[in-house]
Amino acid sequence: MSGLFISFEGGEGSGKSTQSDMLVARLEAECSRRVVRLHEPGGTPLGEYIRDWVKAQSAPLTLQAELLLFVASRAELVQRVIRPELEADSIIVADRYADSTTVYQGNARGLPLKDVRAANAIATGGIWPDLTFLLDVLPDASLRRAGFQMSFNEGGQVEPVPRADDTGKRRFEELSTPFHRKVRDGYLQLAKTEPDRWVVLDASQPAETVHAQVWERVQGLLAP
Amino acid sequence: MSGLFISFEGGEGSGKSTQSDMLVARLEAECSRRVVRLHEPGGTPLGEYIRDWVKAQSAPLTLQAELLLFVASRAELVQRVIRPELEADSIIVADRYADSTTVYQGNARGLPLKDVRAANAIATGGIWPDLTFLLDVLPDASLRRAGFQMSFNEGGQVEPVPRADDTGKRRFEELSTPFHRKVRDGYLQLAKTEPDRWVVLDASQPAETVHAQVWERVQGLLAP
Repeated sequence: MSGLFISFEGGEGSGKSTQSDMLVARLEAECSRRVVRLHEPGGTPLGEYIRDWVKAQSAPLTLQAELLLFVASRAELVQRVIRPELEADSIIVADRYADSTTVYQGNARGLPLKDVRAANAIATGGIWPDLTFLLDVLPDASLRRAGFQMSFNEGGQVEPVPRADDTGKRRFEELSTPFHRKVRDGYLQLAKTEPDRWVVLDASQPAETVHAQVWERVQGLLAP
Repeated sequence: MSGLFISFEGGEGSGKSTQSDMLVARLEAECSRRVVRLHEPGGTPLGEYIRDWVKAQSAPLTLQAELLLFVASRAELVQRVIRPELEADSIIVADRYADSTTVYQGNARGLPLKDVRAANAIATGGIWPDLTFLLDVLPDASLRRAGFQMSFNEGGQVEPVPRADDTGKRRFEELSTPFHRKVRDGYLQLAKTEPDRWVVLDASQPAETVHAQVWERVQGLLAP
């Protein structure tokens, strides 16, 4: 496969969407190859359907079912979009991919990592990004960016609370600093085990600075 | 868990539905415990939703996505229904369970058995039937029962063709004798590896005869 597969990972509010947009725009401006931007679980009819369904539920799914639905939609995306695009020499820029599942469903929600890895292996069929940028930011800062105010709870610990305009749809657990700490630790652990694929960037820097660091690494992978 | 979990497995037309009904009726008549009849992928809102969606698609899903959707719905069923019912001392009679996935997605459709086993392990959380009846029947006979006529193809090989009143919805592959042979071989292989759980019955016998054999084994598991 001659294409190039780049993913952005990181907690809520770390700037993945902004950096994906900036990279896609830069690639389209400076390179003649086809660029495909992906944002799971969208990108296939099954993915959209699953997303709509999960949003509409009043009771949350079991962790296992949620994991398996996510990876089912990823399996479709890999076989229908990612593999053919890579075979056609395209550049894929993904706002989250299988590493998000490892970290969110495994490290943060507590499903056994071997189960999450097995599910990811089935879904990805061994297709992993060539380069993954971890937009690393301290949990509190990232939550603030994502639109939460900080307040002090009774123990004096900083806890995020949703802004008044939040629709209240997010699960309580996902608002907590400990949850986001597990996400961050999970990502840093992954980056350490595969240093050739991962690039850890300080996402508290201005977006333009982060983009310049991203672009420097991506340029190195583009054929002249 | 004090409940009892019984499943029926076998190819299309082997009589699983009939035997499930007969066993449920017998249990309800002769035993005071709650009896729950299951037929995957029904039984949970997610299962019904997935079934409707798969039916509505014109293009089939990838094998991997299909596998993962089936097991996602099973994960819900296990956590929301099977586990609590078994904890409450109920008797569960399932018309197909995880072994169907092993045989259909693995042996017959050709996904790696280790992937199918890994997916099943996540979904079942280790909850397997206490007793599984394999309703064994030769592929041709089972297809005839399921509503297909037999015809001779050009090579003189017997091939099933859908009856005139068939809606034509079944995939061609599922109509072929080789496919059903793989299903049968897969089941017989599973039964051999776990002889304590599996009971292989000759499903070409009259339904009442098969039921008598089923009942004899089930009685042995019911507390006096």
